[in-house]
Amino acid sequence: MKISVLGAGTWGTALTILLSNNGHEVTLWSALEKEVVALNTDRRSIPNLPEAVLPDSVVVTNSLNDAFSAPEFVVFAVASPYVRATAKRVSSYVKDHMIIVNVGKGIEETTLDTLTDIIEEEIPNADVAVMSGPSHAEEVSRGIPTTCVVGAKSKKTASLIQDAFMNDCFRVYTSPDIIGIELGGSLKNVIALAAGIADGLGFGDNTKAALMTRGIAEISRLGMRMGGKLETFSGLSGVGDLFVTCTSIHSRNRNAGYLIGQGYTMKEAMDEVKQVVEGVYSAKAALKLAKQYEVEMPIVEQINLVLFENKSAKAAVSDLLLRDKTQENNSLEW
Amino acid sequence: MKISVLGAGTWGTALTILLSNNGHEVTLWSALEKEVVALNTDRRSIPNLPEAVLPDSVVVTNSLNDAFSAPEFVVFAVASPYVRATAKRVSSYVKDHMIIVNVGKGIEETTLDTLTDIIEEEIPNADVAVMSGPSHAEEVSRGIPTTCVVGAKSKKTASLIQDAFMNDCFRVYTSPDIIGIELGGSLKNVIALAAGIADGLGFGDNTKAALMTRGIAEISRLGMRMGGKLETFSGLSGVGDLFVTCTSIHSRNRNAGYLIGQGYTMKEAMDEVKQVVEGVYSAKAALKLAKQYEVEMPIVEQINLVLFENKSAKAAVSDLLLRDKTQENNSLEW
Repeated sequence: MKISVLGAGTWGTALTILLSNNGHEVTLWSALEKEVVALNTDRRSIPNLPEAVLPDSVVVTNSLNDAFSAPEFVVFAVASPYVRATAKRVSSYVKDHMIIVNVGKGIEETTLDTLTDIIEEEIPNADVAVMSGPSHAEEVSRGIPTTCVVGAKSKKTASLIQDAFMNDCFRVYTSPDIIGIELGGSLKNVIALAAGIADGLGFGDNTKAALMTRGIAEISRLGMRMGGKLETFSGLSGVGDLFVTCTSIHSRNRNAGYLIGQGYTMKEAMDEVKQVVEGVYSAKAALKLAKQYEVEMPIVEQINLVLFENKSAKAAVSDLLLRDKTQENNSLEW
Repeated sequence: MKISVLGAGTWGTALTILLSNNGHEVTLWSALEKEVVALNTDRRSIPNLPEAVLPDSVVVTNSLNDAFSAPEFVVFAVASPYVRATAKRVSSYVKDHMIIVNVGKGIEETTLDTLTDIIEEEIPNADVAVMSGPSHAEEVSRGIPTTCVVGAKSKKTASLIQDAFMNDCFRVYTSPDIIGIELGGSLKNVIALAAGIADGLGFGDNTKAALMTRGIAEISRLGMRMGGKLETFSGLSGVGDLFVTCTSIHSRNRNAGYLIGQGYTMKEAMDEVKQVVEGVYSAKAALKLAKQYEVEMPIVEQINLVLFENKSAKAAVSDLLLRDKTQENNSLEW
């Protein structure tokens, strides 16, 4: 297949190498000319994945004409803040029913749109799909066994993407639940922050497991109200992604939470981690969504109070434990 | 309330202290006279929880007459291999509708009964409930924030147990799904073994998250066929318990798996870990249940081949990744 990848960040680069090794003809496009020159010179992304070499056949380009010269599908690997602008920019190149697979995660703060929502709005003639799951790019580039799930509007599109990506160390499942996949991947970072806070407070595995489990329960409640399926939140893009994010010492969200648990303010923690802490933005978006869809999300509420209202992390955990006695899941009946 | 706890192991002792600190009148019964003498002398369980002191008001006894002198309910904290014999032994002491809360985990190999099944068979006049969740006893005894779920046949019974246990660092949820709670807690050890094997093979977080997520998906498929609810497998006694078991370096199952991943045979790994590795027995039981209920459980199958048929762990992971392309969850429709 002929496939183009938009975005030469860590994930875009790792997927380019994977697709190329699977025998596809891959074009890697970046908006940044400097990045294109560096990739063409070094044949590797020194800032992102210094160990992983781009196969010779991969074309790295700054030209949208090259990127859109009749690919079978396009992988959209653009950081969330740039997704709308990039989608707008490329829209005139997209032919009717062209398949675009979003592999980014995030929710737009002003509109509360998911990334596939944004791409669909800006490129209404495309067939937009999503791929997500527990997949550190660095591990994928080393050939560590990894699983993902592809969500698409038709089984045919999902199968085509599955066929392109799957190999003996990258297993791809399919699903019709695009919104569920998008929401799990985007909102899990709020829970990773909470899990980090519990670690920072010196609490144990019991507390962390409680926050993770009740956290995914909140996300499921909201997500189901928005049209997602419980099965998806229990799947690779839900609990699966939450597992890797909450347990990895490389997770920015977990690490920022840890510092907050140790007494840092949100601002101090973000300065220390020195990178975008996605969970801080997701926390705001999740709270807005909870209000809009009238869903109870106690962990999201407490995280917002800790992040933006100077509530102490210890008091927040204590308030979570002292809430009214309740059933684990209100949809189950005696 | 007047409450009796049967079994003075780690969990029985931790729950005795918790209930006593909640203001209840607690009797702790052990079948082992030596254990009763030691507990009465030291007022702590030196082999199990050396740091945790039994409050003065706790009565430790070897007498079933004392343990069954009109308690509000009985906590059954007996190791799984002794549950049937103990239930048989105490049955004549149990008054009609007396509440018994099982807090153990396991499946009987010969009958494939859960522990509540066994207690109900042996004591048919009791009102049998279950409590489970991500709860290392040692953390509970130190007052680390912890959550559990109580499953019972009536909301009234569940609420009574919830009221007795809940305090400002132990949060209890209720549920009608007894079988779902029992199965999640018992079968998660098979998945912990698999996660440990992946670690031992030197694979990464992606692989571990994949095994955990697809593992709980298998358990959910089987458990739902047996009458459990998806919500329960996504809850504290399902993914919650799986989180703590797979990530804790104290988990015997994870550690035994790690050694098998490193090339030890099952027998060598069990000798090295020097404790009962519950997941080895659960793996057998899970495979039998999968056949009986005609549910596909690829991870359970591969673990059985590794444990009992000398299949190499690496080949097992490889075979899992190379299975037929599939949907993430077949119950979702396009």
